[in-house]
Amino acid sequence: MSEYTQSDPKGISVGIVEKQFFTFAKKSDPLKLESGASLGPVTLAYETCGTLNSNKSNVILVLHALSGDSHMAGYYTAHDARPGWWDLMIGPGKGIDTDKYFVICSNIVGSCAGSTGPASIDPETRKEYATHFPLITIGDMVEAQKALMDHLNITSILSAIGGSVGGMQVLEWCIRYPAMIRSAIPLATTTRHSALAIAFNEVARQSIMADPNWNQGHYYNGKKPDIGLALARMIGHITYLSDESMRLKFGRKLQNRSALSFEFGAEFQVESYLQHQGNKFIERFDANSFLYITKAADYFDLAEQYGNGSLVDAFSKCRAKFLVVSYTSDWLYPTYQSKEMVKAMKKNNLDVSFCEIESQWGHDAFLLPGQRLENLIRGFLRSISNDN
Amino acid sequence: MSEYTQSDPKGISVGIVEKQFFTFAKKSDPLKLESGASLGPVTLAYETCGTLNSNKSNVILVLHALSGDSHMAGYYTAHDARPGWWDLMIGPGKGIDTDKYFVICSNIVGSCAGSTGPASIDPETRKEYATHFPLITIGDMVEAQKALMDHLNITSILSAIGGSVGGMQVLEWCIRYPAMIRSAIPLATTTRHSALAIAFNEVARQSIMADPNWNQGHYYNGKKPDIGLALARMIGHITYLSDESMRLKFGRKLQNRSALSFEFGAEFQVESYLQHQGNKFIERFDANSFLYITKAADYFDLAEQYGNGSLVDAFSKCRAKFLVVSYTSDWLYPTYQSKEMVKAMKKNNLDVSFCEIESQWGHDAFLLPGQRLENLIRGFLRSISNDN
Repeated sequence: MSEYTQSDPKGISVGIVEKQFFTFAKKSDPLKLESGASLGPVTLAYETCGTLNSNKSNVILVLHALSGDSHMAGYYTAHDARPGWWDLMIGPGKGIDTDKYFVICSNIVGSCAGSTGPASIDPETRKEYATHFPLITIGDMVEAQKALMDHLNITSILSAIGGSVGGMQVLEWCIRYPAMIRSAIPLATTTRHSALAIAFNEVARQSIMADPNWNQGHYYNGKKPDIGLALARMIGHITYLSDESMRLKFGRKLQNRSALSFEFGAEFQVESYLQHQGNKFIERFDANSFLYITKAADYFDLAEQYGNGSLVDAFSKCRAKFLVVSYTSDWLYPTYQSKEMVKAMKKNNLDVSFCEIESQWGHDAFLLPGQRLENLIRGFLRSISNDN
Repeated sequence: MSEYTQSDPKGISVGIVEKQFFTFAKKSDPLKLESGASLGPVTLAYETCGTLNSNKSNVILVLHALSGDSHMAGYYTAHDARPGWWDLMIGPGKGIDTDKYFVICSNIVGSCAGSTGPASIDPETRKEYATHFPLITIGDMVEAQKALMDHLNITSILSAIGGSVGGMQVLEWCIRYPAMIRSAIPLATTTRHSALAIAFNEVARQSIMADPNWNQGHYYNGKKPDIGLALARMIGHITYLSDESMRLKFGRKLQNRSALSFEFGAEFQVESYLQHQGNKFIERFDANSFLYITKAADYFDLAEQYGNGSLVDAFSKCRAKFLVVSYTSDWLYPTYQSKEMVKAMKKNNLDVSFCEIESQWGHDAFLLPGQRLENLIRGFLRSISNDN
């Protein structure tokens, strides 16, 4: 995702939240990964908002995108400048209403935001894993989250909700634990990473690995591959926007000047914006985590993994009701990919609602203020709750 | 452009051609650039095919794209593996028929393919210009080509033809020398570089400048910024293709393996293809030239430069007949940008034909085999010739 959302214009918030941690999978009983490797112990950072009801039927699981974290809403302290990344959607009376639902956001394995990832200490070597960290998949992320649900004694999820790489986790949850997931909202996502999406991720990874400071991933006690990571982020950012949004947001406007300088450097606002995004990102994200999580996204292919090439077969065990949402200007995971998903779900007689939202803001649209998505999610959750 | 075209399937070729050079603009009378800087002497590499007729009315000027050169057709020697980059289109009986027309292809200032550019020797310092080379514009490229036309005693051009950055030169020619240009074929191009196109170019430039071997451009006597240039080329290549073409060409096919390796490195064919393109490019292209030519493209904005913001005004002095061609899947210079161009031309009562060609091959489509474009160009040139 591109950016934390702005503070809630209504000023309504879940208030102060706590970053919580759950550790499982001892070294003697590690998490088995899809690659065949093992990982343990595994820590997940997570956040909860709202109150679990007595029959534990009001659980919503929010799953975050590539560069997100467990801090979905509210503030860690009263002095925080910004709330969690989906504060616009999650809170009292909001689309995901914390007066009604118990909302959990789990960070992912491989992340650098409190969960076990390449920057964590390998208990064997007592040094950072770096590139000795095993490659992970979206399925591995879900298995770790399942352990967290078990720990919280949660056996039924009213709705699993997430966009982009978060949407991939949503779909993986529905296939791996069909009995647990009553409904799901995959937003701006895909069932299979396309050649185009892989291409962008690969160039972004190459830009990190080309940075001499990357040092085969072993940079934790030296200079970090900041330039490579900033470049990777710039590439990513282009894919989160759209031709139209960039035209509307920047056009050919110059940055702090009235005429061309005839020098290299950021002259156009769009150049300056991308450099700013790159430079902000290196303060909060680990380059190796970027490598691992993008690779997990590239590996994602539900038809291949669960249907022998058939997406219809991949969804055959699902029992969830679905609300699938795409955006007209999302060219990273275009609408036709959501439609393929919907078609395969319907062939399994699943209850699926699909909405393509008109937007000029590209892939990032699901994170931006918009009444349409909020109303859709609110209505869908209400209908699922009423099924009780 | 992505790639030289394949050998002509029909085996028809202009045969052996010669790389020619023209030098002008002595140091005492240099070429005045749009930036205010001067450059001299200036050499242009060029190639000609066909025969100039007695009244010099059969001249076609072919203008190449970002990474092209003057070698448009035929072979330098009988042993060349590949012909010039547009051999499919230029030759006896082809779309641009060398039995009828005298075809000139001029390299551009700033290039590394025989013309004066950052890798040339600065007569003042007797060292390579490197980043002391002045920034250039599409207009500067055209001024140098005008000097070549003067040298060849050519005062009238039957048609100026080019795609992408070549198309920008075509449009600039029509505006700067309206009395000389009888017709023009801008292909897969734009009148103004969009924020999206600038964004991709800037990230590509940053990847070159982030390579420690770049050394502020002064690498000619040491290691070259090959890794940065290969990355820049990979980014460029993604923009030359399309979601659909990448799906059809690569999909999620693996390279030389039957299962995921769970290791970093090029596993998917699309990754391997991009790396191959990057590695091939560094053998033939200069990183500084990439910086200068992309910057010239980013500066390109006809409305701003010639119309005080009005594209209609920018074309007001043009007298050429136009054939404007766009491709459905070109997302670098999408069809709507060609339509804006056509609209502004028509408001000036110019004779304009417009064709959007259905293609899945993205921006690169104009370089690929396709009867449609060949027929369009042949018919258009015939109609212009008949106006004599």
